[in-house]
Amino acid sequence: MNRFQDQSPLHTLMHHLAKLPGLGPRSAQRIALHLLKKREAHLHPLMISLQQVSDHIQTCDACGNLDTTSPCHICADLRRDTAQLCVVADVADVWALERAHIFKGHYHVLGGVLSALDGVGPDDLRLGTLRQRVQQLGVREVILALAATLEAQSTAHVIRDQLADLPVAITRLAHGLPVGGELDYMDEGTLVAALQARR
Amino acid sequence: MNRFQDQSPLHTLMHHLAKLPGLGPRSAQRIALHLLKKREAHLHPLMISLQQVSDHIQTCDACGNLDTTSPCHICADLRRDTAQLCVVADVADVWALERAHIFKGHYHVLGGVLSALDGVGPDDLRLGTLRQRVQQLGVREVILALAATLEAQSTAHVIRDQLADLPVAITRLAHGLPVGGELDYMDEGTLVAALQARR
Repeated sequence: MNRFQDQSPLHTLMHHLAKLPGLGPRSAQRIALHLLKKREAHLHPLMISLQQVSDHIQTCDACGNLDTTSPCHICADLRRDTAQLCVVADVADVWALERAHIFKGHYHVLGGVLSALDGVGPDDLRLGTLRQRVQQLGVREVILALAATLEAQSTAHVIRDQLADLPVAITRLAHGLPVGGELDYMDEGTLVAALQARR
Repeated sequence: MNRFQDQSPLHTLMHHLAKLPGLGPRSAQRIALHLLKKREAHLHPLMISLQQVSDHIQTCDACGNLDTTSPCHICADLRRDTAQLCVVADVADVWALERAHIFKGHYHVLGGVLSALDGVGPDDLRLGTLRQRVQQLGVREVILALAATLEAQSTAHVIRDQLADLPVAITRLAHGLPVGGELDYMDEGTLVAALQARR
């Protein structure tokens, strides 16, 4: 190994980049060299925007969304329906639903799903405040917008248990064929779900 | 589109990340959310190391390598052989050769290869100082360690022309089968080169 890979700031940068999701040592090296080649165009703007995000983006105390304010713009929006609360695993799911312009209620971002494998227990998720919010907002329907994976579904199960004694309907997103999805590309689980939920 | 994707610092960050090599909008979103989820463990160390790299890593005035000093530790190393100069396209190529512990001469990093498609002309590469360095160092062999692509080879051709009148041998890396490479996975160009250069 040469000294770049042992001790220099460049090594440290590649080490940190390589730990980001989807990146490895090769892609980290490629990105680090690219940043140094284009300091003005890429390195400096990236540094500034990381600083901005670090300074200004916060987690909404209420729902767990990310925004420049807490409560976030969704929680603060009085036009939104407090009777519906949509539970999602991650902030990206909020964005996906917002892009679809279909849901006008409030969100609750868990921050992941329960996973024995990854060591994610109930205390690592925003589960404690869910019951509280359901009661405070006067929620009548909790929509579990969680993935159709084993871990997400066991998380859904825990939430159902937690809210069982409250006067609230608990629904989940329909499982079935994605719109535009071809039948012969679907896995068996999806086909079973789609057939059972036929109407 | 929601406001995250229009105006917030988070949007700006995802925009900058998405422009890095190998990343796109989806992976940029994933990385941005990951950084915000792990501020102490990932966001802050990344910010600090980008700042360190920006402050301390410079391009070696002599060879174009990246290091905390200029001249770089290779150019400053008096034990290295000034009679051999290895011309490479990128800094990553220097690292690859250094890892192999096979070359003990000096390097010359072009900073890319000529490419009409990408708009890389002779003035965008470190071609001007190559001739000068060959003369100053008293180089007797210039080794063109460039890829076996059309663009790299036309770059090699230009360098041969530039140095044609100097008393210096110009060699190139051998083309052939990679060590451990299976014959039936090789493209025809490699097989032709390997057969023609048989010994």
